[in-house]
Amino acid sequence: MAWDYDLIIVGGGPGGLTAGIYAGRARLKSLLIERLIHGGQMMTTDLVENYPGFPDGVSGFELSDRMRKQAERFGLEVLAGEVLDLQPGPPHTVVLEDRQLTAGAVIISSGAGYRRLEAPGEHEFTGKGVSYCATCDGALYRGHTIAVVGGGDTALTDTIFLTRFADKIHLIHRRDALRGEKVLQEQIFASEKVEIHWDTVVQEIQGAEAVERVRLKNVKTGEEAALEVTGVFIFVGITPNSGWLKNRVAMDEWGFIFTDEQMATDIPGVFAVGDVRHKLLRQIATAVGDGAIAAFAAEHYLAAHHRGGKA
Amino acid sequence: MAWDYDLIIVGGGPGGLTAGIYAGRARLKSLLIERLIHGGQMMTTDLVENYPGFPDGVSGFELSDRMRKQAERFGLEVLAGEVLDLQPGPPHTVVLEDRQLTAGAVIISSGAGYRRLEAPGEHEFTGKGVSYCATCDGALYRGHTIAVVGGGDTALTDTIFLTRFADKIHLIHRRDALRGEKVLQEQIFASEKVEIHWDTVVQEIQGAEAVERVRLKNVKTGEEAALEVTGVFIFVGITPNSGWLKNRVAMDEWGFIFTDEQMATDIPGVFAVGDVRHKLLRQIATAVGDGAIAAFAAEHYLAAHHRGGKA
Repeated sequence: MAWDYDLIIVGGGPGGLTAGIYAGRARLKSLLIERLIHGGQMMTTDLVENYPGFPDGVSGFELSDRMRKQAERFGLEVLAGEVLDLQPGPPHTVVLEDRQLTAGAVIISSGAGYRRLEAPGEHEFTGKGVSYCATCDGALYRGHTIAVVGGGDTALTDTIFLTRFADKIHLIHRRDALRGEKVLQEQIFASEKVEIHWDTVVQEIQGAEAVERVRLKNVKTGEEAALEVTGVFIFVGITPNSGWLKNRVAMDEWGFIFTDEQMATDIPGVFAVGDVRHKLLRQIATAVGDGAIAAFAAEHYLAAHHRGGKA
Repeated sequence: MAWDYDLIIVGGGPGGLTAGIYAGRARLKSLLIERLIHGGQMMTTDLVENYPGFPDGVSGFELSDRMRKQAERFGLEVLAGEVLDLQPGPPHTVVLEDRQLTAGAVIISSGAGYRRLEAPGEHEFTGKGVSYCATCDGALYRGHTIAVVGGGDTALTDTIFLTRFADKIHLIHRRDALRGEKVLQEQIFASEKVEIHWDTVVQEIQGAEAVERVRLKNVKTGEEAALEVTGVFIFVGITPNSGWLKNRVAMDEWGFIFTDEQMATDIPGVFAVGDVRHKLLRQIATAVGDGAIAAFAAEHYLAAHHRGGKA
């Protein structure tokens, strides 16, 4: 059986790049396809402090760049393009806008995107005060009063980052306790710029041309309120980038892909790694573990099922 | 319930150190106990090329040092000592030679050691020509003719390293193909210093005061031979450092510890990560993933079972 690549990796976050490093060292003819730019969500992280090996932290941009260089050093090809479909084989066919490519094995590492609040005004004001990326848009709010919605690791990390710019940050959280790491909570509690609104949800984002205020509701007392803000940063979780797969691969109710401990999906020769996977903990440290395992498993799959069949 | 530490981590390889980073950031009162020196087998690796984030490679020593600094920055305590037993609780009791310490949760990251050939003369000449560590002993063989036994990643990596010193290396492998990464195989095949003896096993290591020769046997033809060498480096796999656990935790037939995907063993509150775990692929990249997950799971275990019970 002939194919264009032994392995195609869809998505260039830390899981996909690590798979590329291992596949390159295994001398698989490998292609990584990335929609915009390598690095996935890692790219928009200002300072990564918990990826082992960087005692003073490392910017998401730099870490991504280092992983890409490492993978390319071992022969990984990288292509910019949007994958529209995966047609199961063998060989599997990866469908892009302008071409189709075949591969003996595929690793899905398409990651996850920002989950929306689905509040009135959110869609209308996206890019006009509503943002999902502190690294991208934070500097626009120097001296402003803004709101942040959420209570997990990303919300806390990005709130701390935003204190560099904003004069005042209203942190709006629907529960009575933060979920993010304790070390992050301590920094939030210590900041004089941050005021926390507990048990509170956003009812509407309002303004004329751009965001001018958020309307809030306390979920325990029912009390309503409004805050004058020029920006609303929303960090309420992630949603997997798996719609392009059109349910061809088994997924949970949210669209995260089921795998076994070898990262194998229910389609032989198709693997999934990183944030798009149904898993316990979504971290760079766990994505690189996934990527190493998937490349190893893909190599063994190819050797067992297609020995001598490489293009 | 009171205890000395929220979390005790036994072993300071990449899995244990990553658990320390995450536990520190979760503000668990955490202690890592390491037998000799942090870093585990990683410490004796000359150049780590496949840990994501280091495009030009990084020495095992430096990577270990960076991870330890990072963990200590977030509050991990490190103690040098040998753990002799783990008495299941709660709280769990970690027994050292000179003291006993209690913990709400324990992460076992005691790693793995070198597997022996069990050939006649091997034990007698250990330290007198027989070695399991190229980084430790390679420089002693400058200009010598030596033998390397094995065919996996470690054997190939260390053979390449040993070509810096030895004039001639006989690579003795019991199969007719190498198992290690393709990129490593290519370097082995390209080296004029390396001669491969396929389908061959070591029958005996001989000498007077120190190693003088190895006796070989071809497993296919039955033919016997002898090679004059002054050193024999043995890289035939690993054996888990789990004897100290006295079978208190469920293990496979070789002593690797069974866990679920949260890294939980069959004892509630006791987790296992890295090379000591029953798993598919033993790499630094997979150990750090294990460590992050185990610390996260331990934190949740403590919060669910012992809320407010911390010492």
